[in-house]
Amino acid sequence: MALVVHKYGGTSMGSVQRIQNVAQRVTKWVKAGHQVVIVPSAMSGDTNRLLGLAKEINPDAADMSPRELDMIAATGEQVSVGLLAIALQAIGTDAVSYTGWQVPVKTNNAFTKARIESIDDTRIKADLAQGRVVIVTGFQGVDADNNITTLGRGGSDTSAVAIAAAIGADECLIYTDVDGVYTTDPRVVETARRLNKVTFEEMLEMASLGSKILQIRSVEFAGKYRVKTRVLSSLTDPNIDINIEANSGTLITFEEDDTMEQAVISGIAFNRDEAKITLMQVPDHPGIAHKILGPISNANIDVDMIIQNQSNNGTTDFSFTVHRNEYKKAMEVLQNEVVDTINATQVIGDNQVCKVSAVGIGMRSHVGVASLMFETLSKSGVNIQMISTSEIKISVVIEDKYMELAVRELHKAFGLETQDQAI
Amino acid sequence: MALVVHKYGGTSMGSVQRIQNVAQRVTKWVKAGHQVVIVPSAMSGDTNRLLGLAKEINPDAADMSPRELDMIAATGEQVSVGLLAIALQAIGTDAVSYTGWQVPVKTNNAFTKARIESIDDTRIKADLAQGRVVIVTGFQGVDADNNITTLGRGGSDTSAVAIAAAIGADECLIYTDVDGVYTTDPRVVETARRLNKVTFEEMLEMASLGSKILQIRSVEFAGKYRVKTRVLSSLTDPNIDINIEANSGTLITFEEDDTMEQAVISGIAFNRDEAKITLMQVPDHPGIAHKILGPISNANIDVDMIIQNQSNNGTTDFSFTVHRNEYKKAMEVLQNEVVDTINATQVIGDNQVCKVSAVGIGMRSHVGVASLMFETLSKSGVNIQMISTSEIKISVVIEDKYMELAVRELHKAFGLETQDQAI
Repeated sequence: MALVVHKYGGTSMGSVQRIQNVAQRVTKWVKAGHQVVIVPSAMSGDTNRLLGLAKEINPDAADMSPRELDMIAATGEQVSVGLLAIALQAIGTDAVSYTGWQVPVKTNNAFTKARIESIDDTRIKADLAQGRVVIVTGFQGVDADNNITTLGRGGSDTSAVAIAAAIGADECLIYTDVDGVYTTDPRVVETARRLNKVTFEEMLEMASLGSKILQIRSVEFAGKYRVKTRVLSSLTDPNIDINIEANSGTLITFEEDDTMEQAVISGIAFNRDEAKITLMQVPDHPGIAHKILGPISNANIDVDMIIQNQSNNGTTDFSFTVHRNEYKKAMEVLQNEVVDTINATQVIGDNQVCKVSAVGIGMRSHVGVASLMFETLSKSGVNIQMISTSEIKISVVIEDKYMELAVRELHKAFGLETQDQAI
Repeated sequence: MALVVHKYGGTSMGSVQRIQNVAQRVTKWVKAGHQVVIVPSAMSGDTNRLLGLAKEINPDAADMSPRELDMIAATGEQVSVGLLAIALQAIGTDAVSYTGWQVPVKTNNAFTKARIESIDDTRIKADLAQGRVVIVTGFQGVDADNNITTLGRGGSDTSAVAIAAAIGADECLIYTDVDGVYTTDPRVVETARRLNKVTFEEMLEMASLGSKILQIRSVEFAGKYRVKTRVLSSLTDPNIDINIEANSGTLITFEEDDTMEQAVISGIAFNRDEAKITLMQVPDHPGIAHKILGPISNANIDVDMIIQNQSNNGTTDFSFTVHRNEYKKAMEVLQNEVVDTINATQVIGDNQVCKVSAVGIGMRSHVGVASLMFETLSKSGVNIQMISTSEIKISVVIEDKYMELAVRELHKAFGLETQDQAI
């Protein structure tokens, strides 16, 4: 008997029929003797519908009380848990549902992007001991003043992993509409291959690099509390053999696998939504980075890569990337608030770029990854505009029309199509 | 400056535009210096949509956990309060929303038909003192174990009156899609007239007799805590003069008006959904009523009128009425569980009947109401099948095809078309 957390995404909860499928699947686990806690998302489309109503009332999002938005958005998951409880009860499986505040899942008061502070496992444990399936709303919690908070888009992943950590679950299974983590996006590279295992660090890089399978904070939680987390498909027949299901998908592990040759690169991640901005000939003295990025941050623009090269005659070029949607706003902020203050000669930008990254824990112990990457891109005629590295990834910014080409060629060059990899 | 509670029904909250109208109306009250607490219903159709999903998952309502139904249904009002807060904030009116559990509105644990036990006014009062409009979900509360409960259909009226009582409001304004309480249904009698005032006792009889303007429990609350309650229209221009609005509709009072001649009859109520059942020649001995109605009650069938006449040769005829939808079920229960046990000779029933009632506080001090009523029906050729009376109402059961005729003739006979009434 194991104690497991199942998380089901909005698509998996998207209709009455699908909710009934989830109930079937969970009942199979219960009949096999497992204790199950379920964390479902809102039915797909529901959160958008709710926030759409708010936006209709007040089109100016900046003007809206985030507390009230959370009040509204949190109802989507509340409906889900109730419906799933009814679906389980209808087929004879004892179940009870709880909202975030009933558990309670305590968070800070950063409405619309709250962070979980603690989870009380008393009520969940008591119900499990009574033989019940416990269903807890994802995405939401309650602050110290009993206000409803939400964790931001994709927050249900984080809820599931955090609850798994709090109750000491043996495994957290993230059921979703893909069947695992791939070496790259199969829509871009036909030969992309599902990974049976991926390390926590690799998953973290992939999540932050645009593979939208898991919310990055859920991966951080999994890492911090060492929660064995598995990404698997909810689209299989709910009645497939439980042993097959329990070993399917991709497991996020915490040990580098030493029983077999470690793959150097686990995957190629990419992100289309990039824009790069460069301030030319910025005086190279202390505090300059803050003078540039302070106003950007104040305008609530997230910055991704930041690159500053060796200075030349007391000036340097300072570059960074932002989400493409915020490119125009970032350029305005720089023109209005930064350029004159710091005496930059010019601001140039390009919103037709993308980022491609090679990620792999094996990179640590292998040289030559960077050079193979650059050689491959060069052979394909792709010019590299910016480079940024971490211990287990190398990212390049390139012109976006070359993205698919670059991803395909790198996927092949690093031997990701086969189990036995190159280098 | 007054402290008022505004309650808005589902139709009044039925679209983005209507929610904005409510915000306009409330802002007018705030600008006039009043403190306002708002209790809105779910957007019209929302509760039905939610419960429809549950029914799709499990068509057998009796099989469904009422706790989970409440979990689901309560979200409708939670969305409403959030949207209304956003609409108020959008036009510069400070507002905050609360669910039942946040106030908290404590109830017993009779899911889907819970009763309010206490309301904590601390948080509401603190926000009012800060100059905020406070918006509280209608229809719901929380039990001693932190489970979400709902008060049943129309429960938002009860929430509003109970909150008005708890905070000591000067008046509770029930905004709805009719502009007050009428002498009878204007769809049946063209000359029906809106009452400026109606006593609490009359309202109670009218609410229980099928005038669906106010939920009966809200009227009981208004009576118990002497909450000045007004029923008025939410469909007027939100910017109409506040003094006109504040005196419109129908006020439920607690004093019999002695400054003018008291009207004998305030209104004619009626209910189409009746069915009558009679057990013939029932042995007339103690316990017989319980033997008949016990099984009916166990089958969750509500009984309305009950009539047992003087016995004759040791047997009597025992009659009662039920909702027409439950007629078939009630007949089955009697045939299967009652008839043989009590040795009744026969069960007969009729589901083509209706109930018509004359209601009026003035009846107490006037004779002749019953005889005028019976005379009027007789002149119209309407046969009376059953009669039941209380201190301030007389009800008759008649064949349902005569209902409109009876209501019209009684309305005329009691002079309800004009302010100066007959008798």
